[in-house]
Amino acid sequence: MSGNSEIRVAEIFGPTIQGEGALIGLPTVFVRTGGCDYRCSWCDSLHAVDSEYRDRWKPMASHDVMAAVARLSGGRPLMVSLSGGNPAIQPLGPLIGLGRAQGYRFALETQGSIPRDWFADLDMLVLSPKPPSSGMSLDSGALADCVTAAGNVETVLKIVVFDETDYLWAKDITARYPGLPVYLQPGNHTPPPPEDDSAEVDQDGLDRRLRWLTDRVTRDGWFEARVLPQLHVMLWGNRRGV
Amino acid sequence: MSGNSEIRVAEIFGPTIQGEGALIGLPTVFVRTGGCDYRCSWCDSLHAVDSEYRDRWKPMASHDVMAAVARLSGGRPLMVSLSGGNPAIQPLGPLIGLGRAQGYRFALETQGSIPRDWFADLDMLVLSPKPPSSGMSLDSGALADCVTAAGNVETVLKIVVFDETDYLWAKDITARYPGLPVYLQPGNHTPPPPEDDSAEVDQDGLDRRLRWLTDRVTRDGWFEARVLPQLHVMLWGNRRGV
Repeated sequence: MSGNSEIRVAEIFGPTIQGEGALIGLPTVFVRTGGCDYRCSWCDSLHAVDSEYRDRWKPMASHDVMAAVARLSGGRPLMVSLSGGNPAIQPLGPLIGLGRAQGYRFALETQGSIPRDWFADLDMLVLSPKPPSSGMSLDSGALADCVTAAGNVETVLKIVVFDETDYLWAKDITARYPGLPVYLQPGNHTPPPPEDDSAEVDQDGLDRRLRWLTDRVTRDGWFEARVLPQLHVMLWGNRRGV
Repeated sequence: MSGNSEIRVAEIFGPTIQGEGALIGLPTVFVRTGGCDYRCSWCDSLHAVDSEYRDRWKPMASHDVMAAVARLSGGRPLMVSLSGGNPAIQPLGPLIGLGRAQGYRFALETQGSIPRDWFADLDMLVLSPKPPSSGMSLDSGALADCVTAAGNVETVLKIVVFDETDYLWAKDITARYPGLPVYLQPGNHTPPPPEDDSAEVDQDGLDRRLRWLTDRVTRDGWFEARVLPQLHVMLWGNRRGV
């Protein structure tokens, strides 16, 4: 019975600064849930995706998750980022309600494959549909349903771009949602294997891709898109928990 | 006569992405004006500050500045960043009016030493009061007048932090403006000499300072402050025009 309301948690860590997207630089505690309906070719969080690791995902009640977050933040409210895996497959509504009642704020990041009523209780919904290089295919209807489910909650699109094909795809998808802010980020072609977060990052390659993406966007006159790196990768490589 | 309405321009460049603060990652054309009422010890834009270079600052009419911006953007409206030097010493009101009528948006970055009525016509005012390491001293009244002058315009505080003294100063100053978002950024201790933008940046040192600042803010429970690098320095070093 209680299992239905438990959240499968891969890791809780922070506070550290958000490394990506609309909230980049903001002190945040991360609750990374385990399990995903996708399996992107370049996934950088396989330890929270590959079911081979599911025995390490701890089922936790909402109040235990909030207690862990509060322990990390010294009991001071801050931004909590719900990520994964795909956190939309978890029963996160009660956690969000509990935390917000204590003054915490919640951002959730998902690929947009599973809409949830409780998206409307977030402070920010980050929809990160996966481009062709991921090997996944888009469910346009589910993405639209996620936008609808969020209602008046601030919703942004964040798209990983590896190459020209991804770039053109990002332009096409985002054009369907002219009201939503767009964040583009170069993909990490050197993601960590699930068992080794000390694996070297090709930072020079990432910098080159960021310069390429900047150039592509500005030459293209796509002046509404924001181009940002993964700041945590710049600072800490593939290391987890930072 | 017309000289009174001319803007002294050190450089106009872009579009490239904004490298700092609230608009980080956003495609932007930069209008850097010449001349400053400050002389910070670690100034990274001496070519637009030191009056030794004033013969390179071109007096331009507002419509000529807008024509140059439009040439760079292909005539498509985008964000224009007015920087310096201290752009508040220039007659920028007419330029802002002209550009906004064409759909352009304007952010202005100033140390907050000189309030202007036309701050209220901006899209964003970035106040960047200079910490103790700069060697400058704060005019608190002028800073408060700048906030007042901006009225309902989105106003943010951006503070460069070199060390613990700067950090404590930033906490103190920003606490006086609880409604304003705060952006902290590690200072560049290897700024370019005015004549040589190929001068090497100590990126490892900058990364270390960014990690220190992240750690300082999160341990301190200052969860409203955002910590960001100078992204353009990460990508292009001290090079100008990018």
